[in-house]
Amino acid sequence: MEILEGRLSVLAALGAFHRRFEVILIAHGTHEEKVADLLALAATRAVPVKWVEREQLASMTHGSTHGGVVAVASAKPRATAEELLYLVQNLLEPALLLLLEGADDARNLGFTLRSAEALGAHAVLIKKHLWDFDATEIARPASGAYERLPLAQIEDVSALQQLQRGGVRLYGCIAGARRTMYEVNLAEPCILAIGGEKRGLSGAVRQICDQFITIPTRPEPSSLSLSHAAAIVLAEAMRQRRSL
Amino acid sequence: MEILEGRLSVLAALGAFHRRFEVILIAHGTHEEKVADLLALAATRAVPVKWVEREQLASMTHGSTHGGVVAVASAKPRATAEELLYLVQNLLEPALLLLLEGADDARNLGFTLRSAEALGAHAVLIKKHLWDFDATEIARPASGAYERLPLAQIEDVSALQQLQRGGVRLYGCIAGARRTMYEVNLAEPCILAIGGEKRGLSGAVRQICDQFITIPTRPEPSSLSLSHAAAIVLAEAMRQRRSL
Repeated sequence: MEILEGRLSVLAALGAFHRRFEVILIAHGTHEEKVADLLALAATRAVPVKWVEREQLASMTHGSTHGGVVAVASAKPRATAEELLYLVQNLLEPALLLLLEGADDARNLGFTLRSAEALGAHAVLIKKHLWDFDATEIARPASGAYERLPLAQIEDVSALQQLQRGGVRLYGCIAGARRTMYEVNLAEPCILAIGGEKRGLSGAVRQICDQFITIPTRPEPSSLSLSHAAAIVLAEAMRQRRSL
Repeated sequence: MEILEGRLSVLAALGAFHRRFEVILIAHGTHEEKVADLLALAATRAVPVKWVEREQLASMTHGSTHGGVVAVASAKPRATAEELLYLVQNLLEPALLLLLEGADDARNLGFTLRSAEALGAHAVLIKKHLWDFDATEIARPASGAYERLPLAQIEDVSALQQLQRGGVRLYGCIAGARRTMYEVNLAEPCILAIGGEKRGLSGAVRQICDQFITIPTRPEPSSLSLSHAAAIVLAEAMRQRRSL
């Protein structure tokens, strides 16, 4: 079981239907109007709601950003390679997937998921070790996107190869690639692979990339963080898709 | 006096010539090769270097990310409105300025400065209250950009109006604006104004904006963080400037 903190996260999770809810806890003194939408949604999904002392929430949570709303629910399930493939094949638009091989920390991963959703990504593929981050720490900056966005755990490259055989192109985003992201067609089904800041893309992923692209920037020593690089390349994909 | 933490920050500050250095402290046991560039630069700038016990650094710093290198230096001076105007008038390319009216925290402000530099911003204009953040906390994620990038403190809109009279257009970036950032000419001299996530752009800045623009995203509830929004709109300015 996991603890979901804050009205926004709980609402997003209730709406996303990915988790099984045990209970929603609301602190005494929380205004009913503030949680009216939550209470309504909880009722339609038959999730029990308990009003509790604020201190009880404090003992379960990371800080006080929960604002009096906490839920106990099953962990968010990770999409399997098969589910991912099914998703991609049944989209009404060309697939846009983000593959993250590294992340500075849970917080930046959360911000990246938030942008990924806003910029039209259909799912985010995450390397196994990134799942070691605390889910609550990822979910908070993700502003609900953690709940809504399909997240797949990538164990090896076979899932990527399956997607490639299905017509999805794999672009490795690396500093210094000869081609810029403006010179490729990101409006077609694609996976945008972003490596960690220290190690970059793994050799295994590099080996199967269809093409490498770069985000034009000023020369060294200036650089982009992983999370900003992901947002910028996704925004470019969205730009190309809009102008079709 | 401020404490600069880490080889990268100290090197960037030495190279940027904005601060007056009192001393550079290096922990015993640090490999000489690792700090050879630093020692050389310190010598040319006649900054004293002291080798000290690692414990002494711990008492001065926020964590251990300094990696054995710390400097004591004057605070980074804030560019005045006059200096900003002078800078803009003497650039060899059209000015690209970022105005931040809000920031989630010091860390995201630091990441934003890092991207601003990488994406070609010539200076960042920051509202007065954002300077209350701990400079060390801003500088760390900025990866040297905090030292290199001119930062101006904006007290009121008069500095912006002066820049506007000098031919710089002020774009207010707001969610839901009718025009997208793709429909305006960001290759000409401009200030990109980004508001805080909660309050948005201030009324005073809105009132003098030449135009409002938006970053196309999926509809609510998805959204972009301030720091990602800044990176994306700067990247678009860079794209337009590249294709001239």
